[in-house]
Amino acid sequence: SRVLVLNSGSSSLKFALLDPHSGEQYLSGIGEALGGPEPLLTWKSPGQKHSRQLDSGAAHGVVIDLLVRDLLAGSQPAAGNLIAVGHRVVHGGEQFAHSVVIDQKVIDAIAECAALAPLHNPPGLLGIHAAINAFPEIPQVAVFDTAFHQTLPRHAYLYALPYALYRDQRIRRYGMHGSSHRFVCERAAELLRKPLRELNIISAHLGNGASVTAVRNGQSVDTSMGLTPMEGLVMGTRCGDIDPGLLLHLGDALGFSLEKISSLLNRESGLLGISQLSNDCRELESAAADGHEGAKLALEIFCYRLAKYIAAYTVPLQRVDAVVFTGGIGENSIFVREQVLHQLRHLGFHVDAKHNESIRFGAEGRITAADSAVALVIPTNEEWVIARDAAALVRPGE
Amino acid sequence: SRVLVLNSGSSSLKFALLDPHSGEQYLSGIGEALGGPEPLLTWKSPGQKHSRQLDSGAAHGVVIDLLVRDLLAGSQPAAGNLIAVGHRVVHGGEQFAHSVVIDQKVIDAIAECAALAPLHNPPGLLGIHAAINAFPEIPQVAVFDTAFHQTLPRHAYLYALPYALYRDQRIRRYGMHGSSHRFVCERAAELLRKPLRELNIISAHLGNGASVTAVRNGQSVDTSMGLTPMEGLVMGTRCGDIDPGLLLHLGDALGFSLEKISSLLNRESGLLGISQLSNDCRELESAAADGHEGAKLALEIFCYRLAKYIAAYTVPLQRVDAVVFTGGIGENSIFVREQVLHQLRHLGFHVDAKHNESIRFGAEGRITAADSAVALVIPTNEEWVIARDAAALVRPGE
Ligand SMILES: Nc1ncnc2c1ncn2[C@@H]1O[C@H](COP(=O)(O)OP(=O)(O)O)[C@@H](O)[C@H]1O
Ligand SMILES: Nc1ncnc2c1ncn2[C@@H]1O[C@H](COP(=O)(O)OP(=O)(O)O)[C@@H](O)[C@H]1O
Repeated sequence: SRVLVLNSGSSSLKFALLDPHSGEQYLSGIGEALGGPEPLLTWKSPGQKHSRQLDSGAAHGVVIDLLVRDLLAGSQPAAGNLIAVGHRVVHGGEQFAHSVVIDQKVIDAIAECAALAPLHNPPGLLGIHAAINAFPEIPQVAVFDTAFHQTLPRHAYLYALPYALYRDQRIRRYGMHGSSHRFVCERAAELLRKPLRELNIISAHLGNGASVTAVRNGQSVDTSMGLTPMEGLVMGTRCGDIDPGLLLHLGDALGFSLEKISSLLNRESGLLGISQLSNDCRELESAAADGHEGAKLALEIFCYRLAKYIAAYTVPLQRVDAVVFTGGIGENSIFVREQVLHQLRHLGFHVDAKHNESIRFGAEGRITAADSAVALVIPTNEEWVIARDAAALVRPGE
Repeated sequence: SRVLVLNSGSSSLKFALLDPHSGEQYLSGIGEALGGPEPLLTWKSPGQKHSRQLDSGAAHGVVIDLLVRDLLAGSQPAAGNLIAVGHRVVHGGEQFAHSVVIDQKVIDAIAECAALAPLHNPPGLLGIHAAINAFPEIPQVAVFDTAFHQTLPRHAYLYALPYALYRDQRIRRYGMHGSSHRFVCERAAELLRKPLRELNIISAHLGNGASVTAVRNGQSVDTSMGLTPMEGLVMGTRCGDIDPGLLLHLGDALGFSLEKISSLLNRESGLLGISQLSNDCRELESAAADGHEGAKLALEIFCYRLAKYIAAYTVPLQRVDAVVFTGGIGENSIFVREQVLHQLRHLGFHVDAKHNESIRFGAEGRITAADSAVALVIPTNEEWVIARDAAALVRPGE
């Protein structure tokens, strides 16, 4: 059996066709610049890469139609027996602590949550509607980025704001990257041979967006992203934690509009903002090696802030079975992992340089010395989480 | 010899006359509701309390005139030999890493820093001008709340923002409560019998405003307040850390103006906002004991966030000689100290219940068990720091 996984952004649509049991991908790709003058579709099937220019203005529906008519048809028989379409939905608010089969009530609830994620939920709904049109007979499943964090206790999810903002406006910490944190958590339990319900880890998802989560007894108990994906760690172009008074200062003293502040903090900050060079960790590492001061500084701040979060999350956990690195940076950056663990040496972490250098590019395993507290690298696989959840919901017994 | 210490707020002026060597106070008081219809002056000299209604509209100058004509004159001969006036100035920007004797250049520089602290520096200048008028012959000294934190390394003071905001607008972490953190730091060195330059502590100043500072080798290396006093811990009415995206959400989705957001986050948040009851820790503790849910929640969040900061600050310190509690809450709250240290038990902290219960109301000492990591209570004394600095600058040899 196969599940088609869809991940819709405002101008992009990622898709993957996979076996929910093995995780094997038969087809994957992305439609980019959708709605613009030159939309582009690129995809790969095992051993082959393809790309196709789409008509000007082509949007999510066009990509899905092509998927159905050409791509899936062309992948037969591998694509046979599609049992579900799984959708990544960014914000499930407090309504969704688990994945669900999509019906009208679910669609309405996702639309309601759009008030909390105006940039992210509307494109998710676009994808859902297009997929319902294209596959009217096949069950659609929603998998929420926030769901894994619905186990946070009150003292971790409430901000120190007037309580009415939570009660009436649902303003609280929700957290994101839930599927990724859940994936590495389940995998860490296997690697450490511990029942998930006894597992305490701190998982660092370090991609363009980045978040760190404290998992106690298999459940998320704190996480660095908040109401929105702006809070927490330094990211590619997002600022992460800043003084709230700083935003007011940008408005008051410098006369910036909210719109300007938003684009500044979302798109011009983070690694890019500090380095004035790039949002890309790999580029920064090579520039830093060549002596670029901004690149060095950006990496230094990134690592210092991550190390502080990990140390802070020892508070809700008390006992940490492992720190887990994932996402593009976590899976590949020798430098970041080494720096962060070095700053945590007082907590018993000592990198094994050989393992740290060899575990990259999709490899998995332990990067700390034998007598050290444990740090693992686990390549994340959000598509697989989505496909598994979808399959479990539509074929419960399997 | 005596130093007069002045601390000017926008509508208040605190003053104290003290011996810079012993710290003994001969006179202290506060003018409140200055500039309003019913300004009030209250003061005490050893053994006596006084208060006096001032004329409608009376401001900082009137208080200082009364100080000179009535109060100081009435305190003779104890008040004799005034060698300096010491001013608390909130924001010294990057210009001031130490206290200085005030001249026109210093006044200009403080005025420049007012762009960074529009609520705080202008009243400080009011007090300075009034004092120069009243005591034209006596040296005036400025002591900055930010100065102690000028030793922060770049990776701790830079936000992950476009670098130009730092280079051109001086937007960075400055930190506050510097005199208090410095005071407890020097005292901790004495209590622990360590040279200051080898002392590593985490000092928590918990008053209506609250901040926590990591001190390595006697120098501040990280601190929770930022560009403004809004960042960091939960405070009486300030929110501390929140998602920057949350502010944008308040503006975008809820249509709040910057002014409304500012007053919400500065005056209606923190302990008051969560509890919907009070900004006062003592009141919250007694309400929580009576089962008030909001009060319990506010205290829980306050303690959890503080414990996380302390754990995070083990990263820059690696070795922590002591955690130090100060400020009204730190000096007095059995509950907060017990809760916070309990959450840090994985780092070796174990409260000694008897000592925790007895060290309050101005007492000083260790509140952890013999085999525990060390936590100290040290009553802060910002006036004394200011008086000492002033005396040291105007009478260097003494
Ligand atoms: N070999 C590498 N060394 C360091 N960083 C890497 C390496 N490979 C990828 N990265 C970084 O991973 C980040 C992208 O992570 P990824 O998880 O793919 O992003 P997204 O959040 O968009 O899914 C980029 O900063 C990239 O530079
Ligand atoms: N006995 C006490 N128990 C708990 N909290 C106390 C106690 N005494 C004072 N506090 C708290 O100290 C805080 C005021 O601290 P203080 O340092 O005086 O404030 P400020 O920052 O205005 O100087 C208030 O929250 C008050 O409730």
